[in-house]
Amino acid sequence: MLRHVPPLLTPDALHALASMGHGDELAIVDAFFPAARLAREGGARLVHLPGADMPGVLQAVLALLPLDDFGPEAAWTMAVVGDASAVPPAVVEAQAALRHAGQAPAAALERFAFYDRTRQAFAIFVSGEARTYGNVLLRKGVLRAAGAASLSGTS
Amino acid sequence: MLRHVPPLLTPDALHALASMGHGDELAIVDAFFPAARLAREGGARLVHLPGADMPGVLQAVLALLPLDDFGPEAAWTMAVVGDASAVPPAVVEAQAALRHAGQAPAAALERFAFYDRTRQAFAIFVSGEARTYGNVLLRKGVLRAAGAASLSGTS
Repeated sequence: MLRHVPPLLTPDALHALASMGHGDELAIVDAFFPAARLAREGGARLVHLPGADMPGVLQAVLALLPLDDFGPEAAWTMAVVGDASAVPPAVVEAQAALRHAGQAPAAALERFAFYDRTRQAFAIFVSGEARTYGNVLLRKGVLRAAGAASLSGTS
Repeated sequence: MLRHVPPLLTPDALHALASMGHGDELAIVDAFFPAARLAREGGARLVHLPGADMPGVLQAVLALLPLDDFGPEAAWTMAVVGDASAVPPAVVEAQAALRHAGQAPAAALERFAFYDRTRQAFAIFVSGEARTYGNVLLRKGVLRAAGAASLSGTS
């Protein structure tokens, strides 16, 4: 337990978030996702956070992680197979968490495109999410002047 | 770089701070200190933070680490050998950093008692401090109700 750090972020989760540079991506996935295989194939760090659903892990991550602001979005969910306009409940909650954090909405990626991006991610956080399509990809950004911190101070 | 996290705290430093439980101790030492040997002898994690002096590292750590409040103090410096009443410049600054963070002043430990405590510490952060007696021991505490956090929120 540390000040300012959401308690569900374990030491390994914190280490991964702090190790990421801008443009590096993090996947937060549901408990059904082939996370271990994609991490093995692509070399992503695999961190298990079974104590929360995907929107809960997303909210915790957004408390610390600045998102990329070079593109129109910095977050992606997985499109429902065969119904690209569907918005599953976990995705509704993820969009709310992004909105609450002042971020642009997540865009939808086709299923296999989502797998490819996850394979190339820096880290995969496996949540305890038991709802299907409970996955989100985030691209890390920088802390702009207003959020920049002195060397030993906080933002 | 993460929100709320002082930039000089590396991923390994963050991992150590987050891994500590209450009662566990952290030594922040100067660049002359036999840190590698004491870490080898006692099993402490050794983290190098050469980019700041001891008070700078202390300030960064105090931004995240709650200190113990069971005893009269939760921080200790090393007493000057042969002059227990002396207060070296690095210690003056460490006391100011503690005061600024709302903490009780550090007490002084005799030199070899300080080595013994450091040998038993959970982690040793080696600062770039070039002043002698630039060392401080901290004992981790808990986040009380006012500072407690929800699982995915921040304190």
